[in-house]
Amino acid sequence: MNKKIEVVLTPALLPLYQVQGKNVVIIDVLRATSSICVAFFNGVNKILPVSTPEECMMFKDFDFLCAAERNAIKLPGFDMGNSPFEFQNPLLKERNIAFTTTNGTKAIKQSKELGAGKIIIGSFLNIAVLVNWLKKQQQDIILLCAGWKDKANLEDTLFAGAVVQALRDDYALDCDSAMMAAHLYQHMQNDLEAHVRLSSHAQRFKALHAAEDDVRFCLQMNTAPALPIMQGEYLINTLALTA
Amino acid sequence: MNKKIEVVLTPALLPLYQVQGKNVVIIDVLRATSSICVAFFNGVNKILPVSTPEECMMFKDFDFLCAAERNAIKLPGFDMGNSPFEFQNPLLKERNIAFTTTNGTKAIKQSKELGAGKIIIGSFLNIAVLVNWLKKQQQDIILLCAGWKDKANLEDTLFAGAVVQALRDDYALDCDSAMMAAHLYQHMQNDLEAHVRLSSHAQRFKALHAAEDDVRFCLQMNTAPALPIMQGEYLINTLALTA
Repeated sequence: MNKKIEVVLTPALLPLYQVQGKNVVIIDVLRATSSICVAFFNGVNKILPVSTPEECMMFKDFDFLCAAERNAIKLPGFDMGNSPFEFQNPLLKERNIAFTTTNGTKAIKQSKELGAGKIIIGSFLNIAVLVNWLKKQQQDIILLCAGWKDKANLEDTLFAGAVVQALRDDYALDCDSAMMAAHLYQHMQNDLEAHVRLSSHAQRFKALHAAEDDVRFCLQMNTAPALPIMQGEYLINTLALTA
Repeated sequence: MNKKIEVVLTPALLPLYQVQGKNVVIIDVLRATSSICVAFFNGVNKILPVSTPEECMMFKDFDFLCAAERNAIKLPGFDMGNSPFEFQNPLLKERNIAFTTTNGTKAIKQSKELGAGKIIIGSFLNIAVLVNWLKKQQQDIILLCAGWKDKANLEDTLFAGAVVQALRDDYALDCDSAMMAAHLYQHMQNDLEAHVRLSSHAQRFKALHAAEDDVRFCLQMNTAPALPIMQGEYLINTLALTA
């Protein structure tokens, strides 16, 4: 029997799913998982997802760079916020980063607590590498949309749909959320940016007069091929390890 | 400023929304809210949504008909399950019904506890009557999909999308779930049945060798115009009151 692929539209729904042992892909397109791919593509050594800004700041003493965002805004006193442009800096090479974001790090922690097999970072920027790796694993897959404050959002659902589309011939699709996500992606893929610009999160960016360019950046395909996977407490770029 | 319309994809997400005072439309297309419309269209007097089969059965002593379904199956000893065909019986005229279903009655109770303004029953069978009434109210609207065991499902999302489509010119749409639902409906509306037959719930029906005709029945437009609204503990057909 085929392995299963399921889409969880927000972390609030994750406890309804059988997570134990499954590979969980964390999706926070605007912007945490996009920025993580960019960081690794630019040579970052490892990333430590932490829950709170206070916890994040503690790692300054251990020569980490510290990145913290809340409500789409970089917190004062931190090296970086959550914009992918901040992670393109060549000075990041070989550095370690402690990272806390509104939705992304929470989804990682929660997957861990529920006994996920492997926890992988997904974004449009690394989609081909991700899909190829998932195909090879032959494991049940949960695509976990980080959403916005536990509500579903368009951009994460669309990315989940893109992955479902790419894998649907090889996996059993017994999940309405996966069907809906794939259908949405299929009909929006030729004009992703226009659709995502109408989404509530993009509107939120606009209201902040910030991060508008981030929307376009985060919808590019395969511009930051990396394969960040949780190993212990850290995200490591396993693509670098196997290359 | 325009009033808001939001879609809640499953009851598990309802606590994230500001429900107080808003009109909440309960959506359980397969099959509770469809059957409720059919019951009222066939002259039922009032319907009492109850939580458990045990509670439901107690109302036999008060001359209620008792309807109970769990996991898509009619429970033994009850007058009816959850199939709309069972509610087309002319013997139901003027009768009272106590009704408990897997997902539908739970969504009603929860909306009440969170302080909803009016709680209205929605299905394709009464969509025009519902939409006209909502337009006249000029209140914020929450479209609450009953889903399946707290997961999102296709048929309820599609119905929510149909209502959003009908109202979007008059309401503010600051909700990605509403955008997604409307988009899905727009692209599936010409072949609703084929799409819904692929959904997990329709597949569940198929596995039970039951209720397959119910899918087609519940996707008909405006064949049971009724406007069931909670008044105190009961659902009443307010269309009958104003006609």
